[in-house]
Amino acid sequence: MTKRVREILSYYDSENAGVRTNLARMLNHGKLAGTGKFVILPVDQGFEHGPARSFAVNPPAYDPRYHFQLAIDAGCNAYAAPLGFLEAGVTEYAGEIPLILKLNNHDVLNDEKDPAPSVTASVRDGLRLGCAAVGLTIYPGSTQEKSMYQEAREIGEEAKAHGLPMIIWSYPRGSGVSKQGETALDVVAYAAQIAAQLGANIIKVKPPTAFIEQAEAKKAYEANKIPLEPLSERVKHVIQSAFDGRRIVIFSGGVKETDESLLNTVRGIQAGGGYGSIIGRNSFQRPKPEAIALLNKVMDIYRG
Amino acid sequence: MTKRVREILSYYDSENAGVRTNLARMLNHGKLAGTGKFVILPVDQGFEHGPARSFAVNPPAYDPRYHFQLAIDAGCNAYAAPLGFLEAGVTEYAGEIPLILKLNNHDVLNDEKDPAPSVTASVRDGLRLGCAAVGLTIYPGSTQEKSMYQEAREIGEEAKAHGLPMIIWSYPRGSGVSKQGETALDVVAYAAQIAAQLGANIIKVKPPTAFIEQAEAKKAYEANKIPLEPLSERVKHVIQSAFDGRRIVIFSGGVKETDESLLNTVRGIQAGGGYGSIIGRNSFQRPKPEAIALLNKVMDIYRG
Amino acid sequence: MTKRVREILSYYDSENAGVRTNLARMLNHGKLAGTGKFVILPVDQGFEHGPARSFAVNPPAYDPRYHFQLAIDAGCNAYAAPLGFLEAGVTEYAGEIPLILKLNNHDVLNDEKDPAPSVTASVRDGLRLGCAAVGLTIYPGSTQEKSMYQEAREIGEEAKAHGLPMIIWSYPRGSGVSKQGETALDVVAYAAQIAAQLGANIIKVKPPTAFIEQAEAKKAYEANKIPLEPLSERVKHVIQSAFDGRRIVIFSGGVKETDESLLNTVRGIQAGGGYGSIIGRNSFQRPKPEAIALLNKVMDIYRG
Amino acid sequence: MTKRVREILSYYDSENAGVRTNLARMLNHGKLAGTGKFVILPVDQGFEHGPARSFAVNPPAYDPRYHFQLAIDAGCNAYAAPLGFLEAGVTEYAGEIPLILKLNNHDVLNDEKDPAPSVTASVRDGLRLGCAAVGLTIYPGSTQEKSMYQEAREIGEEAKAHGLPMIIWSYPRGSGVSKQGETALDVVAYAAQIAAQLGANIIKVKPPTAFIEQAEAKKAYEANKIPLEPLSERVKHVIQSAFDGRRIVIFSGGVKETDESLLNTVRGIQAGGGYGSIIGRNSFQRPKPEAIALLNKVMDIYRG
Amino acid sequence: MTKRVREILSYYDSENAGVRTNLARMLNHGKLAGTGKFVILPVDQGFEHGPARSFAVNPPAYDPRYHFQLAIDAGCNAYAAPLGFLEAGVTEYAGEIPLILKLNNHDVLNDEKDPAPSVTASVRDGLRLGCAAVGLTIYPGSTQEKSMYQEAREIGEEAKAHGLPMIIWSYPRGSGVSKQGETALDVVAYAAQIAAQLGANIIKVKPPTAFIEQAEAKKAYEANKIPLEPLSERVKHVIQSAFDGRRIVIFSGGVKETDESLLNTVRGIQAGGGYGSIIGRNSFQRPKPEAIALLNKVMDIYRG
Repeated sequence: MTKRVREILSYYDSENAGVRTNLARMLNHGKLAGTGKFVILPVDQGFEHGPARSFAVNPPAYDPRYHFQLAIDAGCNAYAAPLGFLEAGVTEYAGEIPLILKLNNHDVLNDEKDPAPSVTASVRDGLRLGCAAVGLTIYPGSTQEKSMYQEAREIGEEAKAHGLPMIIWSYPRGSGVSKQGETALDVVAYAAQIAAQLGANIIKVKPPTAFIEQAEAKKAYEANKIPLEPLSERVKHVIQSAFDGRRIVIFSGGVKETDESLLNTVRGIQAGGGYGSIIGRNSFQRPKPEAIALLNKVMDIYRG
Repeated sequence: MTKRVREILSYYDSENAGVRTNLARMLNHGKLAGTGKFVILPVDQGFEHGPARSFAVNPPAYDPRYHFQLAIDAGCNAYAAPLGFLEAGVTEYAGEIPLILKLNNHDVLNDEKDPAPSVTASVRDGLRLGCAAVGLTIYPGSTQEKSMYQEAREIGEEAKAHGLPMIIWSYPRGSGVSKQGETALDVVAYAAQIAAQLGANIIKVKPPTAFIEQAEAKKAYEANKIPLEPLSERVKHVIQSAFDGRRIVIFSGGVKETDESLLNTVRGIQAGGGYGSIIGRNSFQRPKPEAIALLNKVMDIYRG
Repeated sequence: MTKRVREILSYYDSENAGVRTNLARMLNHGKLAGTGKFVILPVDQGFEHGPARSFAVNPPAYDPRYHFQLAIDAGCNAYAAPLGFLEAGVTEYAGEIPLILKLNNHDVLNDEKDPAPSVTASVRDGLRLGCAAVGLTIYPGSTQEKSMYQEAREIGEEAKAHGLPMIIWSYPRGSGVSKQGETALDVVAYAAQIAAQLGANIIKVKPPTAFIEQAEAKKAYEANKIPLEPLSERVKHVIQSAFDGRRIVIFSGGVKETDESLLNTVRGIQAGGGYGSIIGRNSFQRPKPEAIALLNKVMDIYRG
Repeated sequence: MTKRVREILSYYDSENAGVRTNLARMLNHGKLAGTGKFVILPVDQGFEHGPARSFAVNPPAYDPRYHFQLAIDAGCNAYAAPLGFLEAGVTEYAGEIPLILKLNNHDVLNDEKDPAPSVTASVRDGLRLGCAAVGLTIYPGSTQEKSMYQEAREIGEEAKAHGLPMIIWSYPRGSGVSKQGETALDVVAYAAQIAAQLGANIIKVKPPTAFIEQAEAKKAYEANKIPLEPLSERVKHVIQSAFDGRRIVIFSGGVKETDESLLNTVRGIQAGGGYGSIIGRNSFQRPKPEAIALLNKVMDIYRG
Repeated sequence: MTKRVREILSYYDSENAGVRTNLARMLNHGKLAGTGKFVILPVDQGFEHGPARSFAVNPPAYDPRYHFQLAIDAGCNAYAAPLGFLEAGVTEYAGEIPLILKLNNHDVLNDEKDPAPSVTASVRDGLRLGCAAVGLTIYPGSTQEKSMYQEAREIGEEAKAHGLPMIIWSYPRGSGVSKQGETALDVVAYAAQIAAQLGANIIKVKPPTAFIEQAEAKKAYEANKIPLEPLSERVKHVIQSAFDGRRIVIFSGGVKETDESLLNTVRGIQAGGGYGSIIGRNSFQRPKPEAIALLNKVMDIYRG
């Protein structure tokens, strides 16, 4: 085990050995094994956005087994998906890559202003499927915060007692934040802090923009001269906001973009001390060889 | 056991042997035994629409035993009904046809814009009554999504642990979708995907129309040139949207229609690779000999 | 469903539909389907007597899958085995033959005078594995009766509530009976009665001999001129002792014997109104083609 | 409701209304309805003594339905039997006569000196089968007393909480009493007291003989001039010993005897204030018309 | 994943993905990764034999962390120990080597003829500590069999439902077997069969000797000419007895012996198709460099 992995695990010294063992399984798997960096393949878009929007551009991706194979071939640290997608491929791929069961999901057939995802799988499912972690989305800023935070906490308590780390996708949204504010630096940093305070072992946020949403926050950012540019400075601020770097924070690739802009984002994350990326649509919405090539470029950046 | 049945069962290789045994029981029963195709008789309209709307046109159908006998005489793969209807006939017909207990129901005395069905029976009831599966309705697009999805998941986990497959009737409805959108191709495909992700072993949707509801989806359908005509192409797209054909998807007969239009729909389902039909009102709202004649025409189409 | 199967199911009219459905599954499977007769393949001898004594004479039988295939090829009504043997083959054979999970077992490494089998699987295992019934052994005459009867009753109550019939292997043994008495007519008839009173749906006993063990019983047999010869009369008495023929009673083939003596026993069982045979060692301790030939001769006798 | 029935029910005024309702159901059923007297048909001898000893003399009695019909035709207050016998007939006779589920049983294949019956059914079974009461045997004097008393108490607590009266068959037996002592007056009176103290609502004992077993007791009987003759005096003493007549105590007919001696015993019970008889072998071990005639003579005596 | 590992995992196709994932973790760890072979370090002798007998010869071994480091340095597939030993080192070594929690233990302060180990940890402990499996000892031949088998089965059901494989140490002992018989070929083969029937995923037995214990078994061994020499033939027979090679069976190093005799035993295990060795005292009762040298020689043999 590398010194860096040992150091990261030491941040979680109040977690039981099961949680740390599973964190180590992800940290020591794939092409970034031992570096302390992550590239995770998440595929919940079939549920979140619908199948055609997700898979029509690359039809082999309709098949649940496609994504297991992609994550394995690309050398990702882990593959994350909802219950149905995992169940439909896990027998064939058991033991080949750490799995993350996404325990809640939201769809856009009912695309409410203040969303609350549905709990769509259980910790017991995660154990039964041999997962290395479970994941949950919260929407800070939604009027439904209370139910989401409480579900996250209850499920997290159960998961961690059974040795499964909890990953929180912390995505500000709802009446409390403007559209632009969803990726504002103050809001993303705040979302990372909330997830950490809820006991998340790994936190996923969107790359922050150089915008400050909240008036009260703005005063602090100005008074303390927190730099808004470049991206690496913003990432550094988010990492600092998640317990001064003592929680693993990874960043989404966000909407489909050009390879170069995605790689630039990754360079910013790496320069700012981010722990890695979770790259869904930019991976599976193109032919597999291209996806692997792109993911390997990302991994090269994180290997430094 | 036929090669096709073995192939279908292989899609469910992460389910326990109990679930697969009960899937096999339905796949190997009736006139379509061994073909991998389904014709199921569902009779929950007494609850869903009221007794007179459902049975007055063919009064023998008020008697719960009528439907067991109809399903047996027609050679259906299974008969699906709510608790009361099953309890009222099961002793006489135990062991003669696979039964599906419909675990939730909705009525139109309270016909809310955003419906959520009531859980009206338990997994334990299903075991006690000797059922081969349990079924649930969800209404994606309703503001009540969260409670429905969570019930489906919890009940599904319990059912599958006890060896009973879960069937989800996935019927978009509620504030999130327009009336026309309830059968839009993008919406039906999305509804099939959601049911599959919730762990459904069999998914029931309505035959999709050549309409696209969601603006974001429309872009994907156009960009990827997904054909909207004929019905067989739409069915193919829905089947693809349910894990690339690796989940059993069957289609309702929908409202009462002419025999010829219903048979044309069935031809489209068959041509598009659909797994079969669930035909209620078009079966029991006519004299039994006529119903059997129609159902057998449907089965002839599925036998290819 | 045949008239005879309907008649037999009518004897179980206080059981729930699940239990009757599973009885029907066994009654309607294999070459004896519809006749009301049973030939079951039981393979628990690996546990009960040790592997070499059981399988060395026909080494392919060491493989758990061998017995599933044998039961299927021979056209048995069901295959019965302990947890390990079922788990090791069930995925390959799910849905092809009704399975009976043997819930308790005894070995001869500790071959005590007053045996009590260990509970080695659960009702939940039976559901998970897709079984059509669960089975238990009791040893009437053992000083351990109380624990065995109570386990049988508790497990039976749970099994039947979940729709699984209970089969009791009722084998007199222990301090209360002599060696010869274990198959004495009065003792076997008594053992059948006890199993029936404990709520067994199917009862397995050994073919009774023309011996009366208990002095008090002897008076009744003599006073009422109950015939001891031939075997068919003894079988008739045992069947009568199990609720006047209203419980399914099947008979073991006993120790390995010549084919002709086994077939004569079967003829006696058939002539006496027995419901069938459970034939283990005489089936799997010979090459498969010979086993199938013998089992088919047995089935021919039961088909009458 | 007669004054006498009201009076008897008043003795049970700390029991819940369910228990009292079920007592009333038995008190108000059959030819003795309203008199406060009982004649109950018990048939557990198939389990307790073996089928041939019990039924060979009158073969129709092998059929479980025979006994329901006999109890109904004779006008008994209730019919008592083990699980299997009740399950095998209850569907046909539900609602026709109050049923008592015998919750424990003992056989003579293992006929130990210090017996302890096995619990062979549950309170839940009793509710499911529509019983009016549950019954248990205890053997005061056995070294196994502790387990029996505790089972009686636990089951009784559960039964009564669910509205089912508890009947205790209190039969002294085992190392602590001589053979003659099993029916000694002091022992029978003691056995009745123990059952009453354990919370039994109805107590069944054997008719006491004019013998005193225990030396310490003998002193008391002599000092207080408790009469040992005739039977009516002994019955009076037993009734007094069961809370001064405030618990229902009924007496067995014991071994098969001449009709006249049995009727004389009944006259003694009636004269001594006993609540009635429980008559098994003297009922079902003769042709049904003769059984009905005898039972009606017994009832005539109790009607006074 | 190698072809051989895939093949072994296919034997467990009725287990859930969690169990198979954890089997894969052990099969793919250490110097034998991918070969399908195992060398496991077990250290429960502190509990089983006392600390001085276990550790005085090599005092660093008193420290629980010593054994984690030894197993890691030697490249074992896994390290097995009781609760206390695992708790005392797991934080330092989490994620570095698959752990097996030994769930029951026995000591020699109470060294009864018919032993039954105490359950000393829970499945939940195993999850909390990040273990890849749980282990249990049974003593076939002990009069305490019933409690041991039932504990194994109940714990095994819970463990496997939570994704943890069950390992059974099957060590014949007690009144039913002679001292010499504890390692007799028939007895060891029988012990392997029993463990497999109880649902064990991995079975540990002692290397069998060329002795036959049971008279009935001797007949079968002679009649079927089962060879008793050399060791490789005996190992082959034991492997066959565990579901024809479809269960992982590993062998203990037994008592401390010379390196050459131990290596010869390993050669016999390898030649007979055994899955590997579990080597405790021969590992930790010598200086670490020597232990590593010996273990590596063992691994060289298994690498073939």
